[in-house]
Amino acid sequence: MRLTKFTDYSVRVLIYAAMHAERLVTIDETAEVNTISRSHVKKVVLTLTQLGYLRGQRGRSGGFTLAKPPEEINIGELIRRTEPDFKLVECLGPNNACVLTPHCRLPPAMDRALAAFLQVFDEYTLADSVSGKLTL
Amino acid sequence: MRLTKFTDYSVRVLIYAAMHAERLVTIDETAEVNTISRSHVKKVVLTLTQLGYLRGQRGRSGGFTLAKPPEEINIGELIRRTEPDFKLVECLGPNNACVLTPHCRLPPAMDRALAAFLQVFDEYTLADSVSGKLTL
Repeated sequence: MRLTKFTDYSVRVLIYAAMHAERLVTIDETAEVNTISRSHVKKVVLTLTQLGYLRGQRGRSGGFTLAKPPEEINIGELIRRTEPDFKLVECLGPNNACVLTPHCRLPPAMDRALAAFLQVFDEYTLADSVSGKLTL
Repeated sequence: MRLTKFTDYSVRVLIYAAMHAERLVTIDETAEVNTISRSHVKKVVLTLTQLGYLRGQRGRSGGFTLAKPPEEINIGELIRRTEPDFKLVECLGPNNACVLTPHCRLPPAMDRALAAFLQVFDEYTLADSVSGKLTL
C-alpha cells in the first residue's frame, strides 16, 4: 500500500517552500535540490497553486511561496486533495465487477480503516512537519 | 491510495472458499465465477496455501478449501501478509533519497496512520466478512 508519488512530491514541495519562507523558490531549484524531475515539480506546483497552497510570481526574479501560513496547511486535507482516489479495492470504485459484493461485509471496514488513516494526518499541519528552519 | 490487486483477489478467493466450505473449489471455477484470470487465481491460491490459509487436494476431483475455520482468519493479518509493502512514501523504503528527511517530522505520522488503518482490519475475521452462506 502506497501513497502516490504526486502526494509524496506535494508534501516535499510544501516543506521546501516552508523552509525558505523568507524568499521565493523556483521550480528549477526545487527540482535540483530534491532530485525530482523538473516536469514533476512543475505539475505539482501548478496543482498546489490551483488548490491555494502556493502562490507564484512571474518574471525573471519570479518563483513561488506558500500562499498561507504553514500552521494553516493541514496534512490530512492535503492528502485528500492530492491523492487521485482512495478506492482501496475494486468494489469501492465506479467499475465494480466483483460478484461477491452482495455477500461481502468488508466495504464498511474499508471505509473505517481509511477514515482512521486520514484522521491521524488531520492532527498535523505543515508547521508540525518541519523541524527547525534550515537552508539546504 | 490503493491496496494491491493481489490483496483484493486474496480476500475474494478466501470469501469464495468460505462460501463453499462443504466442498473443494477449483482454480478454474474460482477464476470463471469471479472473472479473474486463471493465472492470477493460481498465484493467489499458491501463496494462500503457503501461508496456511488454504489447503489443496490433488487429482481429478481435486481443488482447495480453507485450511482453518473462517473465525480464525484475521483480515488485518491477511493484509499484512499479502501486501508487498507499506512504504507509503519514499522515505519509508530502503532507497530513500529525499534530502528533506533530516528536517521532516512526518514519518512518525505515517507509522501511526498505517497502524490505525490496519488495526481496524484486525477487528475482522473472514467469518465476519461473509454474510450468509450462499452459493453463487
